[in-house]
This record gives sequence, structure tokens and C-alpha cells, in this order.
Amino acid sequence: MTHMITVAIAGPRGRMGQEAVHTVISREDFQLVGVLDHKEIAENLQQYPQFPDTYDVPVFMDLQTLFNEVKPDVIIDLTTPEAVYEHTKLALKHGVRPVIGTTGFTDEQLQELTDYAKQHGIGAIIAPNFAVGAVLMMKFAAMAAQYMPDVEIIELHHDQKLDAPSGTAIKTAQLIQENRPSHKQGHLDEKETIPGARGADFDGMRIHSVRLPGLVAHQEVLFGGEGQMLTIRHDSYNRASFMSGVKLCVEKVMTLDHLVYGLENIL
Amino acid sequence: MTHMITVAIAGPRGRMGQEAVHTVISREDFQLVGVLDHKEIAENLQQYPQFPDTYDVPVFMDLQTLFNEVKPDVIIDLTTPEAVYEHTKLALKHGVRPVIGTTGFTDEQLQELTDYAKQHGIGAIIAPNFAVGAVLMMKFAAMAAQYMPDVEIIELHHDQKLDAPSGTAIKTAQLIQENRPSHKQGHLDEKETIPGARGADFDGMRIHSVRLPGLVAHQEVLFGGEGQMLTIRHDSYNRASFMSGVKLCVEKVMTLDHLVYGLENIL
Amino acid sequence: MTHMITVAIAGPRGRMGQEAVHTVISREDFQLVGVLDHKEIAENLQQYPQFPDTYDVPVFMDLQTLFNEVKPDVIIDLTTPEAVYEHTKLALKHGVRPVIGTTGFTDEQLQELTDYAKQHGIGAIIAPNFAVGAVLMMKFAAMAAQYMPDVEIIELHHDQKLDAPSGTAIKTAQLIQENRPSHKQGHLDEKETIPGARGADFDGMRIHSVRLPGLVAHQEVLFGGEGQMLTIRHDSYNRASFMSGVKLCVEKVMTLDHLVYGLENIL
Amino acid sequence: MTHMITVAIAGPRGRMGQEAVHTVISREDFQLVGVLDHKEIAENLQQYPQFPDTYDVPVFMDLQTLFNEVKPDVIIDLTTPEAVYEHTKLALKHGVRPVIGTTGFTDEQLQELTDYAKQHGIGAIIAPNFAVGAVLMMKFAAMAAQYMPDVEIIELHHDQKLDAPSGTAIKTAQLIQENRPSHKQGHLDEKETIPGARGADFDGMRIHSVRLPGLVAHQEVLFGGEGQMLTIRHDSYNRASFMSGVKLCVEKVMTLDHLVYGLENIL
Repeated sequence: MTHMITVAIAGPRGRMGQEAVHTVISREDFQLVGVLDHKEIAENLQQYPQFPDTYDVPVFMDLQTLFNEVKPDVIIDLTTPEAVYEHTKLALKHGVRPVIGTTGFTDEQLQELTDYAKQHGIGAIIAPNFAVGAVLMMKFAAMAAQYMPDVEIIELHHDQKLDAPSGTAIKTAQLIQENRPSHKQGHLDEKETIPGARGADFDGMRIHSVRLPGLVAHQEVLFGGEGQMLTIRHDSYNRASFMSGVKLCVEKVMTLDHLVYGLENIL
Repeated sequence: MTHMITVAIAGPRGRMGQEAVHTVISREDFQLVGVLDHKEIAENLQQYPQFPDTYDVPVFMDLQTLFNEVKPDVIIDLTTPEAVYEHTKLALKHGVRPVIGTTGFTDEQLQELTDYAKQHGIGAIIAPNFAVGAVLMMKFAAMAAQYMPDVEIIELHHDQKLDAPSGTAIKTAQLIQENRPSHKQGHLDEKETIPGARGADFDGMRIHSVRLPGLVAHQEVLFGGEGQMLTIRHDSYNRASFMSGVKLCVEKVMTLDHLVYGLENIL
Repeated sequence: MTHMITVAIAGPRGRMGQEAVHTVISREDFQLVGVLDHKEIAENLQQYPQFPDTYDVPVFMDLQTLFNEVKPDVIIDLTTPEAVYEHTKLALKHGVRPVIGTTGFTDEQLQELTDYAKQHGIGAIIAPNFAVGAVLMMKFAAMAAQYMPDVEIIELHHDQKLDAPSGTAIKTAQLIQENRPSHKQGHLDEKETIPGARGADFDGMRIHSVRLPGLVAHQEVLFGGEGQMLTIRHDSYNRASFMSGVKLCVEKVMTLDHLVYGLENIL
Repeated sequence: MTHMITVAIAGPRGRMGQEAVHTVISREDFQLVGVLDHKEIAENLQQYPQFPDTYDVPVFMDLQTLFNEVKPDVIIDLTTPEAVYEHTKLALKHGVRPVIGTTGFTDEQLQELTDYAKQHGIGAIIAPNFAVGAVLMMKFAAMAAQYMPDVEIIELHHDQKLDAPSGTAIKTAQLIQENRPSHKQGHLDEKETIPGARGADFDGMRIHSVRLPGLVAHQEVLFGGEGQMLTIRHDSYNRASFMSGVKLCVEKVMTLDHLVYGLENIL
């Protein structure tokens, strides 16, 4: 990057939003030129209790006004799925490149935004998962499955998590499924002496969900082959892991002329 | 050890037996003084196709004759469960210390042998698992469960294994069960969106069985607590892992005056 | 525990102190009856900015007054090494059981406190490391070294850590050293084609220090033997890992009649 | 593959050669039509002591005769570096696709063979490492380094290995170096209290070599980033791990019209 990228953030008070504000301000090649808040808190971020006095950034309650007044290169949208479609459409119309971290689009909305971005040659990134390491894990797993088609997934989370397997494990399994011939793994005559020992069956591969106090969010993908094993593991220790993806998207979206869905497609 | 321990081996042609012959001969402080074979192959081990010419060790087809003629300190018995009870009784009567690697005893037989060894002050070791590392893993797991009672077990084997969970995983879970208050782990409202994801339920803890080509025999015991995780892992790469336990038992049985069941009780 | 244990905390505003206040208050079988603060903040913890209004606990600036007025069963001392010796001596004189998380005692002070506790039959615990999982890792490593004397240590920390190897790695190596015959590991003729590849040499065993952004505090102890490997790993994700040790010590110190140094001696 | 691929093997008696013979014969879509042996053992593989009677395959002592008489699609060459250049040149001239598992070519020889294959549109593969899992690990490490540039490598081998770091670790580090900006990792003021703790320095990243009895060949590549870690690990348990790569190359070389150097370039 040879010149400063001007950035706006929608949703600066949420957990991800606060991290994003700190991240953008800490980067020398990014400039935070405005934030969008749907609730009237103060006219400048420096008056917010969440942020220090040095964060001199104007707050807007209307996105159109924000675009007109501060003309950002990029908008990072961390608001709710309900709001994000209208925000994205408006950003594209103003030539502002959106970086979106939600999954709340219908197929029709996604198609419409994709078509619009393409016609007008504007970059846009929609990334349901911003953790670069997790996305790399999934991408590598999909690649490895082509050559080592016998695979099991172990995902480990804190014991307050309700669903098993995790969304990331299922997404990983789907990507693997698309990259190997479907087959039942394990011995044909294998039997569970205690039900569930062999885990969840997804297209013949097995997924195991560990839940223990103290853990955060971890996943291992194990590939076995003659005389060898390949393991790809991701450990997420805290939310900061998402910020590397946000930064990457802000840089990358400046070079795009169309909409990209999924961080894996720019890595 | 200040003097040589004389050793006999029953069952020198089996896979474990061959390893044991090599192990005893390679140790400078052990001397292999005789082997017992139930099949007539040759009068001396050096004539066996499995062994080199330098292995000059007399072969016996009758255990009583072996004891009378070569008077070993210790007999390592790697024969079948059917034969081993009579062998052990005879050894104790001759004052020969038995080192046994099988589980084929009834409770009554075990009690009888234990009583006999105690009355006559003869050392004896019966060890269903000779792999020192695996036995240490189980021992540590039992100890850790007292302080970190939330635990899950992941065992990983080649995909030709029929039963899940493995015998070692179940033995480990039983030892943990004896060392913690019984409780159901995970969130009370957790749910499996694919059946089996949370593994086999053993006293509220979960056991997960991975089966992949290329793997050998591996197990991880994971303990979670506030802000931390403790993991104890054993990898068995080949049968040689059993020989360290055999050597340890031969040394240790010389110092005992009673029968010990389980390697964990001499570690 | 059949009745409530009354607890005082010295140093409630430090990072560990705040965690300890929350921990003691959250336990139904503990009662926080007073705190010692060397700085005049407020007369009651509920007026502190760090704590909620519901924390109705009197604050004392003098330890003797605290002991006289609220007569706690146990005092958890999380103050500085300078203050802790006088605090501990005073506690023992008042029959209050100290739980201390610092290393700041001279050998003479330690001996004096040990003797005093023994003569008067008062329980006391001094624990330089309260993380139960880390202490179990060290204890198991020392035990395993007796049977699997070939060992290497890998410790992994965030890249802001200055010293390598970590204090825990060196402590672990010392415990292993006391439990195995000293010997140089690796091939006699091994050579480093890039200096440092084989790590730090401690009594012939090797210690490797990994430093990467994002990591917290992790350590693996690897034992290799014929055909097998035993691995003991501890992951510390945040300070909460210390609180399990604090709770354990409060319960345990009630049953002691002497001073114990090191959590490993009560596990 | 819709029709059978006919294969010849040069060097059928070496350790890799024997495995390759078994591998090719066991595949239904491969047919072993001839082997080249520089030593006169027998006219047919079924007379070799290493192979069973059912392996009815003609043995040749001259490669040109082999090519003329059995016209294989592919030749797998597992002979010495000295012989392999002439073999490869001859194969290309006969339109036989070579699959080579050695590094013994000069740059000039490699260029000549590459040019010849290209001009005549013949597929050829030279693969210094046939273990698919190890090659995938290196490929993924190179890709990950673009997004997570802070990395350390831990390689673990049996204690009879002389050199540290391993060749695979150095190769991995070179690939990473080509894919990230060079920089010194760790804290600027970090210090080793025992020399070597931070490992071997390769372009600012660190390589750690563990040597323990019982281990085989293992490597972990660790990438750290804000709040997260990505780990790519390969475990090689025995030589069978190479055969998956051999099979892959035989299939792949049929579809190529030029020479490929390195398995990573066809994965």
C-alpha cells in the first residue's frame, strides 16, 4: 500500500466492532474517517465510554450522510444481518467497497449484490469467518482430501457450547466431501461396544466433538494414509484472531473489481 | 544389578516371544538359560530358522525338566492363556519367579497364585500390558482425575481394528472413574445435530475412537479446567514398546516377595 | 466440606487478587469475611470500582485488626514478596492458616515458618505456582523420567516473553534431573548444521523454546522409548488457571497441621 | 483410468524397490510387465527369494531390451543416482514415461531432460520425496506463510539421526522464506539463559530438532497470529508412506506432456 486507505465502520460498539475500531486506528496505513451508530450516543467516538479521548472520529446515524461527508474507500460492516443488505447496496452505489462479516443474505440478495459489483467494477468481500488460520485450515483440508481421502475431524470447545458438531467442523466436512469420492471409512465389520464411540458420520468420515471447561475453540483434521498421518490444526485463543482477516480484507478489497464470498477465495 | 539374572522363556516362536529372546540375549546382565517350546523344532535355539547361530540356548518341551536342569531365576511366559496358569503354579513351586504377559486367569486362579506367592515369599508379576508408556499414561490419568475431574479420551488406531472404544481406553476410563466423583460432563442442554458427535458415554466422560489407515496405536487423555488443559498422550509405534516393560519386570521381580498384578503397581 | 470456610484476602486489587475475590465469593462453601489493603480506598469492597455493589466485605488496613475482628479460618496472601513474610508469621500466631502465592522467602524465613507451624500444629501452604495442571505436568514428568529417562522439553509462549527457556521448563528439567541418571542424549556423533538446532542442553536433555504471536503459555514434555513416546502437555489459556489451585489450597490447608511448600506436595 | 497402465521397475531388490513391486502388483489398474536388475539373480521375479511364486514377471539386465520387448507405459526407477540419468534419457527416447525417486541429477542433466521431454511431449516425474503427506505439509506451509508470516518448525526423529535440522525441515524453511518477507522473529530483546534454547535461526524463523529413541520421522510447522495458532504436522511411521506417492505419480505421468520436478508441483 503506497497511500492511506480511508475506512468507515458500522457498528462500533459491538464486541467485534470495538476490536475493529482499535485495529483500524492502530494501523498506520489505515485511517478511520467515520463510524455509523444506530443509537445516539455522542457526535464523536472520543466521547464514547468504550474509547479513549484520542479517538477523534465523527459518528453518523445515517449511512448516506456518512458516505457523502467522509467518502471512505472501504466500509467494514459489523452490524446485524437485518441491516447489512441495505448497507451493502448503498455502499456499492456510492462506490464504497464493503467488507462484511455476516452470513445474513438470501441467495437472491447475494446474486443481486454480486451482479451489481461486477457491472460497476467495485470490489466487495463478504466473509462469514474472518479468522485467517481457520479458513486456511479448511482450505488445506479440502486440498489434502484429494490425495489422502481417509479423514476424521476432532473439534474441541468449552463445555458451554450447545451444538455438536461445531459449524466449522461441518463446513470443513462439506469442503472435504466436495474433494474426494464418497466412501464409508473404518473396517466394514467395526462395531461400537459403547454407542457413539466412532463419532458422527458425515459422508462416511467421522467427526468427534470434545467439550471441556477451560477450552476455547480448536479443531484438528487428521488424514491417514499408508504409513503416515497428516494433521492440520487450528487453535483460536480469543477474538483477536478475527482482526487479521479484517485487515487483510481491507487491503485486498482495494484491488478487486467484483464481489468475493468467503475468505478462502482470496487466500 | 550386581550379578547376572538367569532367565527362561516359554513360547519363543510367537511374535512377542521372538522379541523377548532378542531382548534377553542383548542385555549384559541377563542370561537366557533355556526356552520352553510345546512343538518339537530343535534341541537348541541356534537351529531355529528364526534365530542366528550364535543363540546357543537349550530347548525343553517339559517345564519341570527345564526348571530342574537350568534352574532359572525368572521365567518369562508368553504362551497361551490356557497354558499359563499351570506354568505359573509350577514355577512358584520350584521357586522360579514368573513374569506373565496375559490376562487369562480366573479370579480363583489369581487368588490361589497370589496366596501361594505370599506364603512362600516368592516374587511374581502378571502384566496384561507391558508398554511402560501406556501404563504410565493410565496411572497419571487416574491421578489427574482427582484434581481435574472433567476429562475426555481420544484413542486413535489403524482402520483394521474392529472394536471401539479400545481396551486401553476403557481401562483408562475405569481408572478415572475410581478417582473422581461421577458426573455428566458437557452442557446440560447440549445436543448432537449428528448422532454420535459427542462420543461414547462412560460414567459421564466421553470416549472418541478414530480409525484411519496408517495409524498404529495412540491415545490422548484430555483434562480441562478453568483457563487450562492438561493432556497425557501415548504413541505406540511398534511391538518393541513392550520390551521395556519386560526388562523392567525381570529386574523388579527379583526384589519382590509377593505377586503383583499390573505394571502400574510397580511403577 | 460440611461447614463454611471463612477466608480473608490480602491484596484484593492486584490482577490475581481480583480473581481471588471473585472466586471466594462465588463458592458456596467459602465466605469472604475481610480484605487487607495497604492503600486507603474505601471501608467496604462494595465501594471499590473493581467490584459490584453486592460484594459487602469489610476492608482493613492493619492485619492484626483484621484477625481480631473477623477471625478468618484462612488468609490468601497475594501481596508483594516484601510484605508476605510478616503477614505469614502474624497469621500463624493468630492461628489463621496462610495460603501464599509467592516465592519471596529466604531459606531462613522458610525454616522459621515451617518450624513454627509444626510446633503449633497449624496448616500452611506456600505455592509458587497455583496452576494445578502445570504442577501435575511437572510431577508426572518427574515420575516418568524414572522409567523413560530420554526426554526433551518444548515450551511455547507469546513472542513478548524475554527469557528462554521459561522458568517452568527449567523447574521441570530440574525435577527430571533428580529422577534419572544423568546422561547425554542423542547420537554421540550428532552435529548441528545450523547452531542451536538441538536446543538448550540441561543435564544432557534438550529444551526448546518457541515464541510466536498469539500463543499464551504451553509446555510439552516428550519421553521416547523403544517403539513408543509418552507426551505430557499443559496449555494455560488465561489467569483463571490459577484459581483452581487457590480453591484447592483453601480446602486442603484446613486439614493440615504443618507447612507445605509447593502444590506438588499436596497433589 | 479406463485401461491398464503397464509398468516396469528398475531396482526391484532394494528396500524401496521391493515395496514398489508389491504395490504395482497389488493394483488392479497397473500391470508389472518387467523389472531391470543389474545383477543376475534369475530370469523371472517368481524365482527371487524376496517374492512369492505368483509374481510372474520377466527380469532384464539391459534396459533397451526391456523397452523393446515389453514396451511399458511407465518406468519406476529406484536405482542409484549414478545410473538414473542414463536410464531416464533412454526411457524418454523410447517414449517410456519415467517416474524417478532420486535427487542425483546435475543442473545440466536436469535441463537437458526437461528440454527433451518438452520437445517430444513426453510426461516425466522426478520426485526427491514420494511421501504425499510430507509434500502436502511443505506446500501448505509455503501457502500459510503468506498470511501468517511468524512461524517455527519442530522436527522430531529417532536418536540415531546425525544431522540437525533434518533435510525436510530445511526444505520447508526455504519454501517459507520464498513466501514471506524476511524478518527476525521473537522479542528484540529476548535472551537465551541457556544457549540454543531458541533453536536454529533460518531467515529469522526458528527450527528445533528433537531426537529421542522410539521416534520415527515427524515434523510440525507452527504459525502464530493474533489470538490464534495454525499447526501443520506430518508423521511418517514407515516406508509405506512413500508408496502412495509412487502410485500417484504413475497415474499422473500418463497425463503429462513435460517433465515435472517435485511432487508438490502435481498436487
